Amino acid sequence: MGDGSRRISGLATLQDAGPEQIAFVANLSYLKSLNNTRAGAVLLHPEHASECPVDHLELDNPYLGYAHLSRLFDPFLARPTGGIHPTAVVAEDARLGVGVEIGPQAVVESGVELGDEVVIGPGCVVGVNSRIGARSRLHPNVTVCHGVTIGERAILHSNCVIGGDGFGFAHDGKRWHKIAQLGGVVLGDDVEVGSCSSIDRGALDDTIIGNDVKIDSQVQIAHNVHIGDHSALAGCVGIAGSTRVGSNCMLGGGVGLAGHLTICDGVQVTGMSLVTNSIHEPGVYSSGTGAMQNAQWRKNAVRFKQLDDIARRLAKLEKRNQEG
Amino acid sequence: MGDGSRRISGLATLQDAGPEQIAFVANLSYLKSLNNTRAGAVLLHPEHASECPVDHLELDNPYLGYAHLSRLFDPFLARPTGGIHPTAVVAEDARLGVGVEIGPQAVVESGVELGDEVVIGPGCVVGVNSRIGARSRLHPNVTVCHGVTIGERAILHSNCVIGGDGFGFAHDGKRWHKIAQLGGVVLGDDVEVGSCSSIDRGALDDTIIGNDVKIDSQVQIAHNVHIGDHSALAGCVGIAGSTRVGSNCMLGGGVGLAGHLTICDGVQVTGMSLVTNSIHEPGVYSSGTGAMQNAQWRKNAVRFKQLDDIARRLAKLEKRNQEG
Amino acid sequence: MGDGSRRISGLATLQDAGPEQIAFVANLSYLKSLNNTRAGAVLLHPEHASECPVDHLELDNPYLGYAHLSRLFDPFLARPTGGIHPTAVVAEDARLGVGVEIGPQAVVESGVELGDEVVIGPGCVVGVNSRIGARSRLHPNVTVCHGVTIGERAILHSNCVIGGDGFGFAHDGKRWHKIAQLGGVVLGDDVEVGSCSSIDRGALDDTIIGNDVKIDSQVQIAHNVHIGDHSALAGCVGIAGSTRVGSNCMLGGGVGLAGHLTICDGVQVTGMSLVTNSIHEPGVYSSGTGAMQNAQWRKNAVRFKQLDDIARRLAKLEKRNQEG
Repeated sequence: MGDGSRRISGLATLQDAGPEQIAFVANLSYLKSLNNTRAGAVLLHPEHASECPVDHLELDNPYLGYAHLSRLFDPFLARPTGGIHPTAVVAEDARLGVGVEIGPQAVVESGVELGDEVVIGPGCVVGVNSRIGARSRLHPNVTVCHGVTIGERAILHSNCVIGGDGFGFAHDGKRWHKIAQLGGVVLGDDVEVGSCSSIDRGALDDTIIGNDVKIDSQVQIAHNVHIGDHSALAGCVGIAGSTRVGSNCMLGGGVGLAGHLTICDGVQVTGMSLVTNSIHEPGVYSSGTGAMQNAQWRKNAVRFKQLDDIARRLAKLEKRNQEG
Repeated sequence: MGDGSRRISGLATLQDAGPEQIAFVANLSYLKSLNNTRAGAVLLHPEHASECPVDHLELDNPYLGYAHLSRLFDPFLARPTGGIHPTAVVAEDARLGVGVEIGPQAVVESGVELGDEVVIGPGCVVGVNSRIGARSRLHPNVTVCHGVTIGERAILHSNCVIGGDGFGFAHDGKRWHKIAQLGGVVLGDDVEVGSCSSIDRGALDDTIIGNDVKIDSQVQIAHNVHIGDHSALAGCVGIAGSTRVGSNCMLGGGVGLAGHLTICDGVQVTGMSLVTNSIHEPGVYSSGTGAMQNAQWRKNAVRFKQLDDIARRLAKLEKRNQEG
Repeated sequence: MGDGSRRISGLATLQDAGPEQIAFVANLSYLKSLNNTRAGAVLLHPEHASECPVDHLELDNPYLGYAHLSRLFDPFLARPTGGIHPTAVVAEDARLGVGVEIGPQAVVESGVELGDEVVIGPGCVVGVNSRIGARSRLHPNVTVCHGVTIGERAILHSNCVIGGDGFGFAHDGKRWHKIAQLGGVVLGDDVEVGSCSSIDRGALDDTIIGNDVKIDSQVQIAHNVHIGDHSALAGCVGIAGSTRVGSNCMLGGGVGLAGHLTICDGVQVTGMSLVTNSIHEPGVYSSGTGAMQNAQWRKNAVRFKQLDDIARRLAKLEKRNQEG
């Protein structure tokens, strides 16, 4: 609704947007800013159209509209490809698709295969025999170890590591003996991995990350983990070895999953929860307790150590009262 | 008090210091080592002067005195600047202040501005249009992405990442659609960031870290977080998107803050606490329970799942007793 | 037991192994796959020999046998050394043992000493005066800061950092003053450090990691921590400053140890536990509570805040019942 000839130069929040910017209403908590917005136009759901003082575009899912629009302003998309920088070290037998860019100081080792328009950022290392699908982008200083397979349109953020060794040792009663980690890592299409995250290679079989899996920063995924398609893992998540997470799961920040578990499709785990048993029903799961004032917390936390005793004493009292 | 001509070659603890070293008493738990110290001199509070068997310097805040003194022995301060290493790749249009050092294999991209005496360590990458203030130092293999602004005297430790994408996706009911992260990161003056930490760029607006904010290793700061001046974040802290932390806050190791919260000035959160609600009163906050022997813990932890039931049964019993 | 002339080309799980592969039974949960295995041979304990349909090798510790065997297939062991890559920057005064390999884009600074057959991966930086023992391997993009000592046969995975500054500041009532971190880091022999982990240098004395200590990915070890021989730390562990962990300890994923603690030999801490007091008895320790369905959790978690009140009310009721 409005002036179709208006020119737009960018995106901004409802509060900050000026007449040359588009804003959006994706969340009811922002509705209060709608009345006063100075935005050039607003993306919103039809039910809020009547409250909008400026031009607007009605969408069933305005947040999705914002996502599509945002990518028009992505500085990486507008950029011409940089080609192979003269300081990059690229093995003679590496196979490079059309329009590949390899940044300064990057290293592409023997047997590597890079699909069309792959971008390898400055300082990245891609190890022996790894394959990266078309239009994937590695931001600076990423390490992809040997024998890793990455699908198309992956985005790997800076200083993440794909394919470091899993944590496997046998103990002889006195000391540890390393188990060579002979599996690889397979990432599907449209996977994103955040800064400084690590996905370890499998012991014998591969560690497998499905299609459209989104992984935030500071995440640790141990050897032989499987993550199903479309799942999302927030920052600081840690998943121990051989655990299988289904499709369409969402793990909140700092969640920890113990090893050798099975988490079914459609499970959501809230922030900093510890999961030590498999989950067979979709739904929302939680553990822990929220912060309170330290003085109050001290009194309650000390009682946690008496909890079994409290329960037993209560049962005894109940019995006595029933008898009485 | 003592011999002003004594020559000192270094700093050490009260226990280890020899006649050519200075030690300090910053904490009552070290007092017991004072009587037997062989240190050349000791920094201490006037109230402990009488217990000191060697030369000493009385200070109101001896720990602060130690901090000042320690920096005289910092090996980086004594070093002559290395200039621009011939293997560094520096864009022609980058603007470099006086006395800038750029280490081997580093990359400084187009439009970057480096203040006087900035040091860019080996293997670092500074992305397009980023600005770094005077006397800041990047240790090896740091990544500063595009469009990041860093104040003066910052210290960024190895392999940390400033300005990776925030974790933003819209869901269409079936799959994720990336929201381009168009904001930047702004770090104030005197900020320190630990090894392997990540500070993500904002979605539309910037992620903002105030002046004199100290951030330890393995920390994750999500998009659009604000941290107020003089706050300190210990190792493994994770802060979810859009949360605002006040000034003079201290977050213990492993603390997690949920997204979209407001934490007022002067809040201290103890280690590994989970904060899911805003905090409007300064003070100390905690959650969780400390470790105990596993056998004892099992008995209590299982009761946690019965806690609501226990509370209801207790209330019923109380009522019955009052009636009886 | 079986055909000693059989040729084996690799290792696989009981389920996946074909006639040219060896499998193993290290864990009772895999026993059910033994009957149907198509493996060329199986490593197993004598007590399972009768259930094995194919050739087998009886071992007291078949998992240890698997570990030894796995290393025959390690792709790094078969590889010829690469020598010093022409793009590596190696200080003139660095002392290199026999058979040292330094990868492309790596930096070895002044005063560094590398033992025989050390491998420095692509993009690694080894800082001034650090020493690395014979046969140690640094995977790509590792940072070893200045003045670090690493023993023999160390394995450092990609993007980990050894010797970043510890987190030390003095407060003057208004702002922070950095304490120069003048200690180093000493790693014993046979230490492994996972991807993106960080071990900080000491304030005055060194941070010390014993022999045969195994450290997983995303781990943070703060300044002046000591870890005893043969201890193992799983992913995402965080240890605060000056804490001493004994020998033969095992810390589960995400465990947090507060600062200035002493943990005796032979302690095992289960995943995501918080340890705030020293531990003087060997054994297994735990904290926290496991995840449950969110609706159930909400009801119980809110009661945690009433726990002290519940305990007091219970005691009162008990007293009243005894009196009555």
